[in-house]
Amino acid sequence: METWAQLAIPKGFRAAGITCGIKESGKKDMAFIVSDHPCTAAGTFTLNRVAAAPVQWDRALVPKNDMRGIVVNSGNANAATGQKGLDNATRMASLAAREIDCRADQVLVASTGVIGHQLPMDKIATGVDMAAKALTSEVDGFRDASHAIMTTDTVPKVAGTTIRTADGEIVHLLGICKGAAMIGPRMATMLAFLVTDARIPENLLQEALSEAVDVSFNCISVEGHASTNDTVLILANGQAMARPLHGSDLGMFRQALRDVCETLARMIPGDGEGATHRITIDVEGCMNRDEAMAIARAVADSPLVKTAIHGADPNWGRIVSAAGYAGVDFHESELCLKLNGFPLYHKGTPIDFDAAAVSKNIRDNRETHIQLIFYRGGTHVRFWTCDLTAEYVHLNADYTT
Amino acid sequence: METWAQLAIPKGFRAAGITCGIKESGKKDMAFIVSDHPCTAAGTFTLNRVAAAPVQWDRALVPKNDMRGIVVNSGNANAATGQKGLDNATRMASLAAREIDCRADQVLVASTGVIGHQLPMDKIATGVDMAAKALTSEVDGFRDASHAIMTTDTVPKVAGTTIRTADGEIVHLLGICKGAAMIGPRMATMLAFLVTDARIPENLLQEALSEAVDVSFNCISVEGHASTNDTVLILANGQAMARPLHGSDLGMFRQALRDVCETLARMIPGDGEGATHRITIDVEGCMNRDEAMAIARAVADSPLVKTAIHGADPNWGRIVSAAGYAGVDFHESELCLKLNGFPLYHKGTPIDFDAAAVSKNIRDNRETHIQLIFYRGGTHVRFWTCDLTAEYVHLNADYTT
Repeated sequence: METWAQLAIPKGFRAAGITCGIKESGKKDMAFIVSDHPCTAAGTFTLNRVAAAPVQWDRALVPKNDMRGIVVNSGNANAATGQKGLDNATRMASLAAREIDCRADQVLVASTGVIGHQLPMDKIATGVDMAAKALTSEVDGFRDASHAIMTTDTVPKVAGTTIRTADGEIVHLLGICKGAAMIGPRMATMLAFLVTDARIPENLLQEALSEAVDVSFNCISVEGHASTNDTVLILANGQAMARPLHGSDLGMFRQALRDVCETLARMIPGDGEGATHRITIDVEGCMNRDEAMAIARAVADSPLVKTAIHGADPNWGRIVSAAGYAGVDFHESELCLKLNGFPLYHKGTPIDFDAAAVSKNIRDNRETHIQLIFYRGGTHVRFWTCDLTAEYVHLNADYTT
Repeated sequence: METWAQLAIPKGFRAAGITCGIKESGKKDMAFIVSDHPCTAAGTFTLNRVAAAPVQWDRALVPKNDMRGIVVNSGNANAATGQKGLDNATRMASLAAREIDCRADQVLVASTGVIGHQLPMDKIATGVDMAAKALTSEVDGFRDASHAIMTTDTVPKVAGTTIRTADGEIVHLLGICKGAAMIGPRMATMLAFLVTDARIPENLLQEALSEAVDVSFNCISVEGHASTNDTVLILANGQAMARPLHGSDLGMFRQALRDVCETLARMIPGDGEGATHRITIDVEGCMNRDEAMAIARAVADSPLVKTAIHGADPNWGRIVSAAGYAGVDFHESELCLKLNGFPLYHKGTPIDFDAAAVSKNIRDNRETHIQLIFYRGGTHVRFWTCDLTAEYVHLNADYTT
């Protein structure tokens, strides 16, 4: 999934990813992303009532128009850590701010890893110092940052695009994200950081980000457990252009942001812990987005659906029964189901099908496609998840100890 | 869990459990429970919008005052089977009614097993005939019935009690149930059948049953997937007494029904597919039952909590973060957590604890106790679930094929 060769770093941004010893494995555990010029910034965050300290710090700041950077550690979530955790998040921002000569409230903070442990502040202090020294505008900086935010991810996740405005200016957009479990977002998910050299006021940036997150990071799950640390942040430093984005350029930017967020979001269930299949769920013909999302989530989060796909078992009753308990008052005669294109259930009645052929089709493809077609209205949502495997259980039965 | 020696069969009931070939394994797959006298009957059913054909049949009938019996098959759920499925459920009631000389609408029907296949009606017809011939008021009849309703259950599930009325009459109450997966009840769960020789009008019986189900079968989950077939039925034939239950006798009966339902309900996560721990979740100090239940369910259904318990991993952040996404607007400073009696989190702040000792305690006990103590109000709910193991995945990745 690393396609760094095709990616350009937005102008005026530098990044780094280094090892400061928070992870016992010795892998990279601190990332720093800096803009040399003040940025507009926007963010979306977990709705979990037990929100991590860095989420509380960031939430109070964005949207904002003079942001300078984002400092991130992995290996420790700084969540459920009380007042001391908040103090530590503030201190982490201060340390980073000192390195780039700005105020603490011009730096956003993120953490990911185990919940309920205080940050090792000596390592954080050393790490911020090391990361500041390693900052580079070369591709290497963002590549290292994408590694430094990983926890149980098996691959780093990056996406980017370039757009050309009506005036011929070239705008770059680059994003990195992490996540492989505790994925069941409500309003935002896991960690994702986007940078662009577009010039865009913070309120329009927030609107564009919220809209993009809604159809991307909010449409994925691994096991449905919403994290305490979910954070999506974007910095826009305006270095690609003189005047703010407007008119059709603004529309093009919003579309580009949606595309990059969707590309990043899909990588998360694609790298779901222990997963052997990525599952795309299309819920079509619903009365509104709320009911389509409720059905998509119920199907995506059902362990029985997820294990059936893992076993290449066309046990479609599990899919329609999951839709049935989503809390939407449909009648079964309004529902049809296709699995990898094979029609299995039509308006409440089973269809004869070749179970061996469907099973082989599921087994032979890493991508699985579930289509639930309702006859209720015109709303369609697309949702991504992954299967549930014994490997997921092994990975999670023994994570902190 | 079979304690038949201590159980008495309510007067005037007969039962049977036989093999008619619906299950390929050759195990028992049809149960028949009959009262020789008309009964009052009550029931609670799944809220799944894809409700099985037998659920639709029963739901239209109860509460009712002239019911005669219940006929049940395992190995096929008769769910998502369209009009033909409804016709088959009706036919199953008719076949049973003919055997005991009553009308079809005096017989309740239940099915459990794979979804989306039509019932093999030739086998059902043979089975009803065989079951009718095997009916007996001896303990053997109910014991066989408790086996005949099993699917992936590893043990049959039975509970009963006896109460003595103010007039010295002896009332018997006996229940059997099944369930090991697709357990995430809303209003009722899986199959449970209760019989009593108490005399009680159908509306009072329905009230007593609904109340009992609310604190028993509605407080359990295995993986949170609500079945299409959840059904709890009770028949009361009045053979123990001349006048209907009233006053303190009625209160005693309601309590007895709650106790038997709770005993049966707890057996289901205790026999959860692949489970190595039964988990009791106490959510205390909430403002109302709705918020306490939402938190209990979120914790119970989190695969991350379930795998942590399986791994004897005191990774308590997963528990408080699951509470945090339950949709209840608590503040983390209102929350304390104990795990098997060990205090781990107090009013939003982590407590130092001996992780090795807590891990050993979880590993050494099949029963795990999670206590979430809020400082919000006076409501307490108790909920039961089980851990998530690789064995659950193996069992469910390969069930129909």
